Amino acid sequence: MEQPTASMLVIGDELLSGRTHDANMHHLANELTEIGINLSEARFIRDDDDAIVSNIIELRTKFDYLFTSGGIGPTHDDITTDCVAKAFGRQVSVRSDAFKILKKYYDEKGIELNEARLRMARIPETADLIENTISGAPGYVIENVYVMAGVPRIFQSMLKTILPNLKKGSPTLSLSVKLYKGEGDIALELEKIVRKFSELSFGSYPFNEKGVHGTNIVIRGKDKELMIKAKEKILILI
Amino acid sequence: MEQPTASMLVIGDELLSGRTHDANMHHLANELTEIGINLSEARFIRDDDDAIVSNIIELRTKFDYLFTSGGIGPTHDDITTDCVAKAFGRQVSVRSDAFKILKKYYDEKGIELNEARLRMARIPETADLIENTISGAPGYVIENVYVMAGVPRIFQSMLKTILPNLKKGSPTLSLSVKLYKGEGDIALELEKIVRKFSELSFGSYPFNEKGVHGTNIVIRGKDKELMIKAKEKILILI
Repeated sequence: MEQPTASMLVIGDELLSGRTHDANMHHLANELTEIGINLSEARFIRDDDDAIVSNIIELRTKFDYLFTSGGIGPTHDDITTDCVAKAFGRQVSVRSDAFKILKKYYDEKGIELNEARLRMARIPETADLIENTISGAPGYVIENVYVMAGVPRIFQSMLKTILPNLKKGSPTLSLSVKLYKGEGDIALELEKIVRKFSELSFGSYPFNEKGVHGTNIVIRGKDKELMIKAKEKILILI
Repeated sequence: MEQPTASMLVIGDELLSGRTHDANMHHLANELTEIGINLSEARFIRDDDDAIVSNIIELRTKFDYLFTSGGIGPTHDDITTDCVAKAFGRQVSVRSDAFKILKKYYDEKGIELNEARLRMARIPETADLIENTISGAPGYVIENVYVMAGVPRIFQSMLKTILPNLKKGSPTLSLSVKLYKGEGDIALELEKIVRKFSELSFGSYPFNEKGVHGTNIVIRGKDKELMIKAKEKILILI
């Protein structure tokens, strides 16, 4: 069973200027890994029209899925929707389905659905809305592109909505072996094991715990029994 | 004074599988912002030869600088150096300058400089070494590409070494205004101010503090006085 591939486009000056930490890539990575979708690449770009449009076109062509985060709020720097529309050659307008959602959300809160908030009902034609259980304003999907908010709580809520609809792969299993030896001490033996178990992949990650050096070996694959054999081999040889 | 542009390539399966959080992008973003270099794009990719080579070529062509992190350790999954060499069409071999550094480092620790560790002395021809004050094995720079370790302490130490050699721009100043109003309430007035102060850039970032919604407006620019005027305008109008 082939694993679908995915990419992520994180949009926003605040991440590349160091003002804020991103939390969405790590969350998406974990959720996709769990359902057997391979997050192959993630890009962080600035609030720049040309960069957003060209990256949407490139990533959605190169990978099965593209997930975006950021730039769909009500202020002047929220330009993602216009860029998505441009990338697809579609029109954008205030859509009645999105309008109804916003109207209901703000009416219940006793907040005016003013001109600025109404911008969040601007959705490219033919897109399907993605529910936002946190703050009303929906995300949307066009073909293989999922457009979601940058605020982590909202991003997570939108992702939860769409996950059941994605084409799943067989999940990659992982098994860790913690060794209190440096990478340099185990690399050659490890390489022999890596060659022997060609169906599995092995990652080697050095750590330092209170001055004690060690290495975490992460075995990844589909075949649990084979992975356990590889782990035993590592424990015997290293 | 033009700001130099920079890009980052973060190499490693562990970040895209959700196993680990990246800390290096945020650190690099802050350090570059401080010296007036504009981090324009960051990409996270897997331990995949073709992806590493093509991204190095693309990013180093598109931006003034490319900083990489990850994949220069002693194990089988450390493939960055071979990819860098391929991207530049250069040979790689154990170099005497890097060998001397490793020999001294491991001799002092009483650790054998074995075949695996020796791999970390494999450096592409013509590259200049970047000192690693934490664990010996150097990074290196070829033309506008800075190749550094993925372990955050080592990445930070290498970055510290190279920062003084980079071409600086005039630093972008920033000024924050914290408003206890939602983005939807301020967006239209804010947009008028944004138009008025066309030399400055304005970011709008919603927050939620214990259920209280608000917006941080971040004003960025070169002209402190103008920024203070814009801030006053925001405080009066909004």
